[in-house]
Amino acid sequence: MKQSKILIPTKKEAPSDAEALSHVMMERAGYIYQISSGVWSYLPLAYRVIRKVKGIIREEMEKAGAFQMETPSMLPADLWQQTGRYEAYGDTLFKFKDRNDREYILGPTDEEAMTEILRDSIKSYKKLPLVVYQITDKFRDEPRPRYGILRGKEFSMLDGYSFSADQKGLDEAYDLQAQAYRNIFDRAGLNYKVILADSGTIGGDNSQEFSAPAKVGEDVIVYTDGGYAANIEKATSKFTGVQQTAALAELAKKPTPGAHTVDEACETLGVDQGQMLKSMLFMAKMGEDDYQPVMVLMRGNDEVNETKVTNAIDCEELELASEEDTQKYLGAHPGSLGPVGVGEEVKILADNYVKVLVNMACGANDDGFHYVNANIDRDFRVDEFGDFRNVQEGELAPDGYPIKFTNGIEIGHIFKLGTGYSEKLGAKVLDENGRQVNMIMGCYGIGVTRLLSAVAEQNADENGLVWPDSIAPFDVHVIPVNAKKDDQMAMANDLEGQLTAAGYEVLVDDRKERAGVKFADADLIGIPLRVTIGKKAADGIVEVKIRKTGETIEVKQEELVNTVGILLKQLANPTDKQE
Amino acid sequence: MKQSKILIPTKKEAPSDAEALSHVMMERAGYIYQISSGVWSYLPLAYRVIRKVKGIIREEMEKAGAFQMETPSMLPADLWQQTGRYEAYGDTLFKFKDRNDREYILGPTDEEAMTEILRDSIKSYKKLPLVVYQITDKFRDEPRPRYGILRGKEFSMLDGYSFSADQKGLDEAYDLQAQAYRNIFDRAGLNYKVILADSGTIGGDNSQEFSAPAKVGEDVIVYTDGGYAANIEKATSKFTGVQQTAALAELAKKPTPGAHTVDEACETLGVDQGQMLKSMLFMAKMGEDDYQPVMVLMRGNDEVNETKVTNAIDCEELELASEEDTQKYLGAHPGSLGPVGVGEEVKILADNYVKVLVNMACGANDDGFHYVNANIDRDFRVDEFGDFRNVQEGELAPDGYPIKFTNGIEIGHIFKLGTGYSEKLGAKVLDENGRQVNMIMGCYGIGVTRLLSAVAEQNADENGLVWPDSIAPFDVHVIPVNAKKDDQMAMANDLEGQLTAAGYEVLVDDRKERAGVKFADADLIGIPLRVTIGKKAADGIVEVKIRKTGETIEVKQEELVNTVGILLKQLANPTDKQE
Repeated sequence: MKQSKILIPTKKEAPSDAEALSHVMMERAGYIYQISSGVWSYLPLAYRVIRKVKGIIREEMEKAGAFQMETPSMLPADLWQQTGRYEAYGDTLFKFKDRNDREYILGPTDEEAMTEILRDSIKSYKKLPLVVYQITDKFRDEPRPRYGILRGKEFSMLDGYSFSADQKGLDEAYDLQAQAYRNIFDRAGLNYKVILADSGTIGGDNSQEFSAPAKVGEDVIVYTDGGYAANIEKATSKFTGVQQTAALAELAKKPTPGAHTVDEACETLGVDQGQMLKSMLFMAKMGEDDYQPVMVLMRGNDEVNETKVTNAIDCEELELASEEDTQKYLGAHPGSLGPVGVGEEVKILADNYVKVLVNMACGANDDGFHYVNANIDRDFRVDEFGDFRNVQEGELAPDGYPIKFTNGIEIGHIFKLGTGYSEKLGAKVLDENGRQVNMIMGCYGIGVTRLLSAVAEQNADENGLVWPDSIAPFDVHVIPVNAKKDDQMAMANDLEGQLTAAGYEVLVDDRKERAGVKFADADLIGIPLRVTIGKKAADGIVEVKIRKTGETIEVKQEELVNTVGILLKQLANPTDKQE
Repeated sequence: MKQSKILIPTKKEAPSDAEALSHVMMERAGYIYQISSGVWSYLPLAYRVIRKVKGIIREEMEKAGAFQMETPSMLPADLWQQTGRYEAYGDTLFKFKDRNDREYILGPTDEEAMTEILRDSIKSYKKLPLVVYQITDKFRDEPRPRYGILRGKEFSMLDGYSFSADQKGLDEAYDLQAQAYRNIFDRAGLNYKVILADSGTIGGDNSQEFSAPAKVGEDVIVYTDGGYAANIEKATSKFTGVQQTAALAELAKKPTPGAHTVDEACETLGVDQGQMLKSMLFMAKMGEDDYQPVMVLMRGNDEVNETKVTNAIDCEELELASEEDTQKYLGAHPGSLGPVGVGEEVKILADNYVKVLVNMACGANDDGFHYVNANIDRDFRVDEFGDFRNVQEGELAPDGYPIKFTNGIEIGHIFKLGTGYSEKLGAKVLDENGRQVNMIMGCYGIGVTRLLSAVAEQNADENGLVWPDSIAPFDVHVIPVNAKKDDQMAMANDLEGQLTAAGYEVLVDDRKERAGVKFADADLIGIPLRVTIGKKAADGIVEVKIRKTGETIEVKQEELVNTVGILLKQLANPTDKQE
């Protein structure tokens, strides 16, 4: 295809608001156009990449026995009210009404609609298991859209759903999807980790996340060289605490004027952070208008992991208590809280590492004062011990290897959902014994447009994008150095014909621009191989440049197709090259 | 693929609200699911048909030099305010706000976004012409969604846009698109007419509509055996009026108590409908809060064509006057209006057929009275004569052939838009002489999901759907009569393998259902060829049934692939069969 016919508005300057390399390069290379904050158009080059990703997804989904369908973007609000997610999603949902005042939302994910459809379609276990998926636009009113198409308000998502009458059906579908996801990301040339994850607002017990390590990743991935990987919300480490054995000293209240942080209190009291209790008060939402105050205790140098706390309490939502609430329940400001003298109405959780301490310091629930030598049971109550902290780098993971941290972009997530949605929406089938049972669901998702960002983020360099051939907009970029010269254009057309006949997708830069402009644009656009037709064309010789490595090779015209095949194969399987 | 793995919820009963055959059969055959009035899900079979249609579209668009991209569904309201369409679309637009109170709409078409993108991307005529297209969901708050997916609130649409710096570029793009549209509809197996059409709210001068004749079509197609075709809004016929020569009689006012219609007045007065003036008062919106009263006169047996009137006045909108307005301007109710004595503030248009009449009857602008022997100029003023009526069956079209009517479904529309949008949005390029000129646009659209309805409507029979092979969800439906018999399933698997290897898409009904159920479902689903594996399977013989004709053929197992090829080719080119 001829470049002059395609809308590719390359730019010399980076957009002023761009923080991520993928964003800078996708805008500069003419892939994307922002029409409103977090709302993007995909120009022809980006669309070609998206189509290739969708093609890979379809092949792998079909192999996994999943069938494509499509639900609408506009969904009746009452359907989402039935599952409680209309409330739970809050401001993240886009809401609107039709001319008859009927309320709709724009779907941010699709458990409700899919469950309703299956409920109305399937009545017997004999028709199950079934796995359906779609690749449609989803909508989330992100408070802070950023990084180009990495976090937008409207984005393309693959979402799949499995329905079965028994656990075995779910397990099999989940495993097939997990394998399909690996295949998809492998084929798309993505570097990723499969990590243990928490299920979040979707619900369900068992879930894995696919995360792409990248500097701009908004998640912290915890991993080891032994293969353990989890997100920070879910990660655990081996407990290495040792019971302290000092004699219990006498509880004493000390003035700590102006000390509002753990650091300041430790300094004033001359106490190590490991002996200071960090005491935080949360309000846990247990149901409609039903809040439980919860104090969480941990060592001063540890961080509270709210997901672990939420799961331990089994609450709907966990919020840090307001000053009003700390005054109401503890009579002090947040900087001076502690467990001593706290009444039964406040539930007290303590991290396992607190259990082994003696003679701890802690806030006195009296602004400007701390206790020293506080001890469990003697001076304060703990209702439940558990793992409530974030792991730290260097600790030993469950696999025995030291923990490392990296930033990651969440690109996929698979859940064993269970029966939460089918219960709420009445999606039942008759089982083998003629009894009504809830369908057991799994759900599976990939951020399709986000995947582009992740691949670009991992592969781009200072000159532009670098696409793996499997999802590149074209395989070969043919550049006649001077498109005004008939012999160069004739050779370009000839090579385009040969390469196309061999099954490659070819972009010919037929623009009457200077060579420097063309080369710079080619680097920006990031097609794997560039074929330059220059002075040696007269001798039947062209130059092939590998975008990823910058290497160049001179090739005889008649050997080009063959060379392209070999180079693309090597790029797809870099180890082959070493052998 | 195995039918047991795919969600195909066939039903015995038609949905109670279904009026159109395509709607009945697509729901009964498990293709579509209504999630809210006019809002549909496409289940796996429908999705496969949609994908095939999209594939045909892509191939033809690429041939026509158009490149695919994708703009978002959510569009900033202010962009639509700049072109005035935020107002003009009124209640048809879905509107909503984000968490920062920024207003959005859901795009019902996309001239604005595309013009903005091209404006910001292209600065010189050297980069033009360019043609872009997308296949995305569009949204319209239809007052009366109906006929299944034929008229829904959310639907899939192909919309293409051409941008050029000169008229020649527009003409070439338009012609290429027109040809691509013909190819698409031909390949999709649609029976359609290319008709002259009015441009409606999109604006622009030159437009053609692609309309599929069908009983449930909401448009009237006017056509002749000579090749003339237009929609009723646009259609014209040869003027065959003859000047009447009777002596002018004296104007007289007659009581016509209780006569509110043309019929009643003619009867009371003993006048022929051809001598009675139908006088209708409209309010033409000329601009913001600027309305012009317009009286339109025609023979009693003619119908006013509001599009022709709108174009003659060049108004933004034409509305029938309210009773309040007829009282204000004419002092009478709508049943008693006429041109005699009407002041200059009311513009009077008359159809060409009125010009040749003498001694007409008409309302007297006095409830319960009509005039007889009214004559032009002597008794009333006409400001402008023109063609303001709908053509009628039997009249001669411009090509000299008699006019016929049929109902049609609008499935495509191509427009030479001109510079309306580029002017409003400032989309200019430098021309060859370095002058800023507005980009000249064309726009082109196909209702993708509507196309399914149209094809289904034209091909379905009382047993179910009948798909042309080019867009059928599968090519061959293999049915082992008894899936519990190992030999039948083994043969089914074998044939599936052979047919798949030959490039056909095969659905195997592996369900343990009665043969009658399977056959009925196969007819409903409408795959072009059914291969039945029954008792003769033991002798290596299967039966092939052609869904469209009901014909059956016995075929030896080893000849099946060959036979399928021949039959599908014959079905695609029915004339080949005759030769």
